[in-house]
Amino acid sequence: MTDITLDQARKAVDRALAKPEDMGVKMNVAVVDAGGNLKAFRRMDDAWLGSIDVAIKKARTARYFDMNTGEIGKLSQPGGALFNIEHSNGGLITIPGGIPIKNGSGKVIGAIGLSGSTVEDDHAVAESGAVLG
Amino acid sequence: MTDITLDQARKAVDRALAKPEDMGVKMNVAVVDAGGNLKAFRRMDDAWLGSIDVAIKKARTARYFDMNTGEIGKLSQPGGALFNIEHSNGGLITIPGGIPIKNGSGKVIGAIGLSGSTVEDDHAVAESGAVLG
Amino acid sequence: MTDITLDQARKAVDRALAKPEDMGVKMNVAVVDAGGNLKAFRRMDDAWLGSIDVAIKKARTARYFDMNTGEIGKLSQPGGALFNIEHSNGGLITIPGGIPIKNGSGKVIGAIGLSGSTVEDDHAVAESGAVLG
Amino acid sequence: MTDITLDQARKAVDRALAKPEDMGVKMNVAVVDAGGNLKAFRRMDDAWLGSIDVAIKKARTARYFDMNTGEIGKLSQPGGALFNIEHSNGGLITIPGGIPIKNGSGKVIGAIGLSGSTVEDDHAVAESGAVLG
Repeated sequence: MTDITLDQARKAVDRALAKPEDMGVKMNVAVVDAGGNLKAFRRMDDAWLGSIDVAIKKARTARYFDMNTGEIGKLSQPGGALFNIEHSNGGLITIPGGIPIKNGSGKVIGAIGLSGSTVEDDHAVAESGAVLG
Repeated sequence: MTDITLDQARKAVDRALAKPEDMGVKMNVAVVDAGGNLKAFRRMDDAWLGSIDVAIKKARTARYFDMNTGEIGKLSQPGGALFNIEHSNGGLITIPGGIPIKNGSGKVIGAIGLSGSTVEDDHAVAESGAVLG
Repeated sequence: MTDITLDQARKAVDRALAKPEDMGVKMNVAVVDAGGNLKAFRRMDDAWLGSIDVAIKKARTARYFDMNTGEIGKLSQPGGALFNIEHSNGGLITIPGGIPIKNGSGKVIGAIGLSGSTVEDDHAVAESGAVLG
Repeated sequence: MTDITLDQARKAVDRALAKPEDMGVKMNVAVVDAGGNLKAFRRMDDAWLGSIDVAIKKARTARYFDMNTGEIGKLSQPGGALFNIEHSNGGLITIPGGIPIKNGSGKVIGAIGLSGSTVEDDHAVAESGAVLG
């Protein structure tokens, strides 16, 4: 298996959205496949409208570079090695909340992106979704 | 209720995706809310990648004009009253497969868009999803 | 006076929106200035969301070529002299409903665009707004 | 009431534009609805043309995240939690001047965006418009 299945993507979304209900936050969650293309998306009632695109872009950014979005963000600061790389690919989002999804062999088969609360919350919820059951 | 809930959107996606499995086709399904903003999306394994954006744009187009996308497409033909209206709103899709979703009082609270097979199939599957249970 | 004033634009919008209330239709109305830049906009409650951009693009198209949008649409048909000119300027809308606004000397100082009903209705309402009081 | 009405939007614009006339500044004002879609817009004579899009994007940004745009801008600085979030949603504007509009129950039903002077002025004028009469 080298690409995430819909079944896996749905379960990733389900796992991710189980958490914010406990935390009292409202999340947008997106899953992209190995090609960086949208596979599944869900927005909780009253979640930020601006987080639709942020969640999708976090997932895409994580897959585009096979690393957590927050790691890219450390490098894209003024003076950094990847300064303003956000201008590529129709807009990257490099704050925490996007995480690659790997199969049992450690190969990246997709990515998940969360947006709706603090970046710490977004990242924590993304971690819940990113680990395949 | 004047805006679709996530629970309603998920059920619409579930109903829509139950049908193509019987038909042997691969679908992308998108649901937007009353404001035309993405609420839920799912892509079946091996469904066309180009249909991601088509499904989302069909749903948005149906909500933007509160009518089935195929009805707009009849009017946007060469010589028609709405010729080339597709150039508005960052790109409309006016072939069949997008249908408004109404609440019990007949008010439009969102829309569904399907893409992945013939436009006849897309429309038929969208109809399965559009009627709230 | 070679550019529409806000006072004139507001009155054009007021005159235009007085009409659809009588006709029982819901309209979006946009006025652009001599530079084709948005000057005033109003959307009636329950008017089509997709008509926001259509109304603005009709007004801009009318000013960009100093003629009624429907006249351009006659020429942009397949085989026509301006075939698919809609691809320019980030998207033109060439169906009826956009009309230049002229000052007392016949100079174009802006344009109005209407969207929300049939193109006949849109054009009729635009005419009400286009004539400076 | 969960979405702003045209009557409320007009009054918000009227209140906002009463203030800059006293201050000797020239403003663009935009109001979006609960879905982030444009509801009303007005540009004062001689106001900056570049502020048309800034005002609209401020209003949309305020609704997209249900907070004042300036609050987002504090977090999107280099090293901040939301660094470069402006690359999402087709371009956000995170300087002061965008404020959510709430109904009597505190629910966000739209937002207002002002642009045309210093960001302090823009924010002060937005505040005049944001409080429903």
